[in-house]
Amino acid sequence: MKTKTNPDTFEKVTWKPGTMLFPLPVVMVTSGDMAAEYNIMTVAWTGIVCTEPPMCYISVRPERFSYGFIEKYREFGLNLVGKELAFATDWCGVKSGRDVDKFKEMQLTPFPADKIKAPLIAESPVNLECVVREIKPLGTHHMFLAEIVAVHGSKAHLDLKTGAFNLSHANPVCYSHGKYYQSGALIGKFGFSVEKKKKKKRKITVEK
Amino acid sequence: MKTKTNPDTFEKVTWKPGTMLFPLPVVMVTSGDMAAEYNIMTVAWTGIVCTEPPMCYISVRPERFSYGFIEKYREFGLNLVGKELAFATDWCGVKSGRDVDKFKEMQLTPFPADKIKAPLIAESPVNLECVVREIKPLGTHHMFLAEIVAVHGSKAHLDLKTGAFNLSHANPVCYSHGKYYQSGALIGKFGFSVEKKKKKKRKITVEK
Repeated sequence: MKTKTNPDTFEKVTWKPGTMLFPLPVVMVTSGDMAAEYNIMTVAWTGIVCTEPPMCYISVRPERFSYGFIEKYREFGLNLVGKELAFATDWCGVKSGRDVDKFKEMQLTPFPADKIKAPLIAESPVNLECVVREIKPLGTHHMFLAEIVAVHGSKAHLDLKTGAFNLSHANPVCYSHGKYYQSGALIGKFGFSVEKKKKKKRKITVEK
Repeated sequence: MKTKTNPDTFEKVTWKPGTMLFPLPVVMVTSGDMAAEYNIMTVAWTGIVCTEPPMCYISVRPERFSYGFIEKYREFGLNLVGKELAFATDWCGVKSGRDVDKFKEMQLTPFPADKIKAPLIAESPVNLECVVREIKPLGTHHMFLAEIVAVHGSKAHLDLKTGAFNLSHANPVCYSHGKYYQSGALIGKFGFSVEKKKKKKRKITVEK
């Protein structure tokens, strides 16, 4: 397999060091121990950091309203975003929980988690319950390293035949360089580059 | 703005704790100090952890061939992936540099970085040069926390009029739950939920 090379590709421009990594996930982080505190914060500085134990991180500016709750209770919900939540996701990233009740304003529905006190968002296709293991100040952002202790998925996105989660149906949103995008066409499954083409089964007719 | 709620959404299934976060970026990580060592490793456990200083991470199993180079030299290249690199990206994630020369087999072109000795991949739309600040064992994976010290972009993806990077032209790939996807349609820019619609300018005709 030859990589298709465009000779123009070799010409590069150099930018000053920056956070030019994409596409990124964009998630709604829920926090607060009691209903009066419940808040939502939008985060794109997030990812998986370990498979076993399953761990993720979020990086957050200490000035953000949610920071105090997560630092204090050491728990948060990570709520994934489908296309129909894009407006609420953007809005929750612009507004502060100091000024507005984001659940109420966006008509989002808090539902109780199994293992943490922070609420989860019912409308999200997938919810992760996270327990903070370490807080790491790095600069403008502090990183919360957390273990994923429970995962929930919406039944609405399950394939009725197989029971598998139907990712395309959930229509996940990604964040690239200041813009929100839908997920597009499937390219292939992990390992597609070494997959042998299945031989056609010959149909054998056995006379009885 | 009402969040469109499907009552079915409220029914949830619970899975065992796992790494169910998507969409994720998928990148080719380059390492090695001299040409005989140059290697490529595919990673989806990556993200931005701080805006200033600009920092990213990659989480890597210690068994992987590239791990030794990155641990030893404390530098790596992070090469973003457009659609035409999806095959090479998958292949470099399946094969080991112990057995094959990945640059050669995938006909990828190493080009010298400015501030690190590890090579970068010319065919990638964006290349980040990264210097490791800390290695953090977490379980199956160890996290390399790194500062982004230089960023390069392919001229082929620049808008000729504005000089801005044309993200759609780069056609970035994301990784969700074991599958590679293209980026899809634009939903909006950060802040679109609070943007006021521009008033139409009245055309005023001044009689002379």
